Amino acid sequence: MIFEITSEFLEDLKSLINLGNDTQIKKIFKEVHYADIAEVLDELSFDDAIYIIKLLDSEKTSEILTELDEDIREKILENLSAKEIAEEIKEMDTDDAADIIGELSEERQERVINALEDVEYAADIKELLSYEDDSAGSLMAKELVKVYETWTVAGCLRRIRGQAKEVTRVHSIYVVDKEEKLIGRLSLKDLITAKNEQKIAEIYIPKVTFVHVNEHDEEVAKIMAKYDLEAIPVVDDNHILLGRITIDDIVDLIRDEADKDYQMAAGFSQDVEVNDTIWELTKARLPWLILALFGGFISVSVLGSFNGAMDRFPELFFFTPLIAAMAGNVGVQSSAIIVQGLANDSLKGSLFKRLLKEIAQGLLNGVVLAALLMSAGMLFLGFPFKLGITVAISLISVIIIASIIGTFIPIILDKRGIDPALATGPFITTSNDILGIIIYFSIAKLVLGF
Amino acid sequence: MIFEITSEFLEDLKSLINLGNDTQIKKIFKEVHYADIAEVLDELSFDDAIYIIKLLDSEKTSEILTELDEDIREKILENLSAKEIAEEIKEMDTDDAADIIGELSEERQERVINALEDVEYAADIKELLSYEDDSAGSLMAKELVKVYETWTVAGCLRRIRGQAKEVTRVHSIYVVDKEEKLIGRLSLKDLITAKNEQKIAEIYIPKVTFVHVNEHDEEVAKIMAKYDLEAIPVVDDNHILLGRITIDDIVDLIRDEADKDYQMAAGFSQDVEVNDTIWELTKARLPWLILALFGGFISVSVLGSFNGAMDRFPELFFFTPLIAAMAGNVGVQSSAIIVQGLANDSLKGSLFKRLLKEIAQGLLNGVVLAALLMSAGMLFLGFPFKLGITVAISLISVIIIASIIGTFIPIILDKRGIDPALATGPFITTSNDILGIIIYFSIAKLVLGF
Repeated sequence: MIFEITSEFLEDLKSLINLGNDTQIKKIFKEVHYADIAEVLDELSFDDAIYIIKLLDSEKTSEILTELDEDIREKILENLSAKEIAEEIKEMDTDDAADIIGELSEERQERVINALEDVEYAADIKELLSYEDDSAGSLMAKELVKVYETWTVAGCLRRIRGQAKEVTRVHSIYVVDKEEKLIGRLSLKDLITAKNEQKIAEIYIPKVTFVHVNEHDEEVAKIMAKYDLEAIPVVDDNHILLGRITIDDIVDLIRDEADKDYQMAAGFSQDVEVNDTIWELTKARLPWLILALFGGFISVSVLGSFNGAMDRFPELFFFTPLIAAMAGNVGVQSSAIIVQGLANDSLKGSLFKRLLKEIAQGLLNGVVLAALLMSAGMLFLGFPFKLGITVAISLISVIIIASIIGTFIPIILDKRGIDPALATGPFITTSNDILGIIIYFSIAKLVLGF
Repeated sequence: MIFEITSEFLEDLKSLINLGNDTQIKKIFKEVHYADIAEVLDELSFDDAIYIIKLLDSEKTSEILTELDEDIREKILENLSAKEIAEEIKEMDTDDAADIIGELSEERQERVINALEDVEYAADIKELLSYEDDSAGSLMAKELVKVYETWTVAGCLRRIRGQAKEVTRVHSIYVVDKEEKLIGRLSLKDLITAKNEQKIAEIYIPKVTFVHVNEHDEEVAKIMAKYDLEAIPVVDDNHILLGRITIDDIVDLIRDEADKDYQMAAGFSQDVEVNDTIWELTKARLPWLILALFGGFISVSVLGSFNGAMDRFPELFFFTPLIAAMAGNVGVQSSAIIVQGLANDSLKGSLFKRLLKEIAQGLLNGVVLAALLMSAGMLFLGFPFKLGITVAISLISVIIIASIIGTFIPIILDKRGIDPALATGPFITTSNDILGIIIYFSIAKLVLGF
């Protein structure tokens, strides 16, 4: 049932393209879902992909275009004229059309929009392009089913038949007053279970969850997930109904955001994919690695400044990677949980309480780990007690301080309007590495007196 | 419009509870969405939460129960009798009911199910409880709208009015043959735009995407996201329609999975939340920290074994944290991108190609970083050339090897059926730390000859 791309299938397809056997290719793709065709095209050479796009009906290719990888789509669009793009676009829902046109240069955007024959549709797309990138407006589509409170059920059904043709899926029917202001909603189910002669005003549900067109897209995702909504209406300052956002776009958004946070925590400076080129991957990896190198360089200098202790306590230097690694790990744990708490608004209570909690946790973890370390070090490596106690105290202090830093850096970033996820990964690890080493040697100096 | 919990609101509510002003409390909650009430209860003391649950209608409280934090719900259910739980449960959709009953002890499950008056409903829940935890069956609900191909549109509409009352939202109408086998689907839109006397057999869409009841839940999520589905029917081995899965459960699943992967990468051994107790958080953090400590201990021994070089090349030891940190960071980057590639099935091409790609990337990153390090070290810290070259060669080798390890450990885990996300975070960092130090000192020994 589920379509699978096999290497056999790809081989067959390639030879059909070489033979120019168009009828057979069309036949193969006739029953295949556009999302699957998009995956096939991602696998083909660029020329072959273009060949197939030009071969298939524009109704199908417009759907395929929306599903393609952005870089392949970009290349395909470069090879189409403004008029050809307009032909593809006109079959799409306004939100998909606006997304794709938005990827073009401003000058080409202009030309494609001018090439659209349907003036109203062109105006809708222009409107959608005018909203901020991360706003509800950028996610919404203009297609929706709208009824006036003064209509009857029968009249409503008749008119909906007309409107519904343009709308892929009818989630909710929005009820507006004569000024186009959103006043409620109606489900198709309500409508078909109502009597024909009833007025919409009698049967609609006046409670409807909506979002403002300038609302942040992640906030929209939270609201839709919380209230289990499949579509949400979007209004402007005057409460006039502008469009609706559907859950499929929210699913994509949630997945993209999760991927982005994960990559940020892993130390990528930009969005990458496993199949990107070596050059793209390196560009995304190097910035954080250079930062980490710079941090490492500081730790080299710090260690160098404690050079004098090397003669008497060489073992001290053996423990530096251990202390640094523990500081890094603890810091990442603390920051990750705060980043998640911030992301789902579950971070509650005062900062002072949060501080006490982190200190308590750090102390608890630190004491367990220090006890393990001390007993292992003294039993197996035969370290003197004084060295053991130095390392143990350092470990506890480093863990507590790394927890506090890991906790408060994301909170501070968030307060300043910076994505707190930036604080996880290399940033926290590197700063905690350095700080860990400084604390460790300072305590050692105090205890051992060198 | 969106309900906000303020500390004022909570204070007012608490005093109303203390005064026993039930009418006022009921009035406050009358217009509030159950998801919001659940959030309010999460903020209250346990006794206060129970008080409110007992006060509100069972129709509302059953919805609230499904939205509550698991640990609070657990406590509340402990305070209710099997009969009382059955009262709450019977208002829920079967999937929610099964999820909640599934949290009880086996013996209590039995008693709650026996206390349900509706025999068919009880049987549905028993069936749902019988499916594996991560399967499509565990996600599905028995509620759906089903029509036979032999019905007419008019008859269909009449019967749907009956069925639809039980179904919160009608996504799709599933069409079955007389053996209850799934043969197609119909949207409400299709139905209301069809003529009354038409037969379902003439108008239904025979292409319907479905999943098998034993399909893995993450696979279901991928399919629904890929094909932009809001509901998907679930069938058994004989293609008999068993239930349907709706997108709201998939949204929750995607969010949970993303949270889990993120936490695993950050080094938590179990699912935690920012507001968990210190004890729960410590329990989740300690296992990986102990592993990291153990790894650190190995690096101490490795460094100890190169003790002899300390007199002549003390600077070598200053660089260990830097080398270890770079190995850790590179390893995390490589593994994160593979884990993501595996998660969204985008990892393609042979393992050998992947290996070459990682070596190329490692070389590119390594050379840039080594050049930076060498020039900085020699310029600012006045290191001798031979030491500089040692550190540079080590850094390049360590980066390449860390990339390879970071790439292949998740791939190997995945092949063995273990969650590859386990490989990110502390595991990769720790093993790369150790390996980095070994490689570094081995190269140093070779170049400097100690």
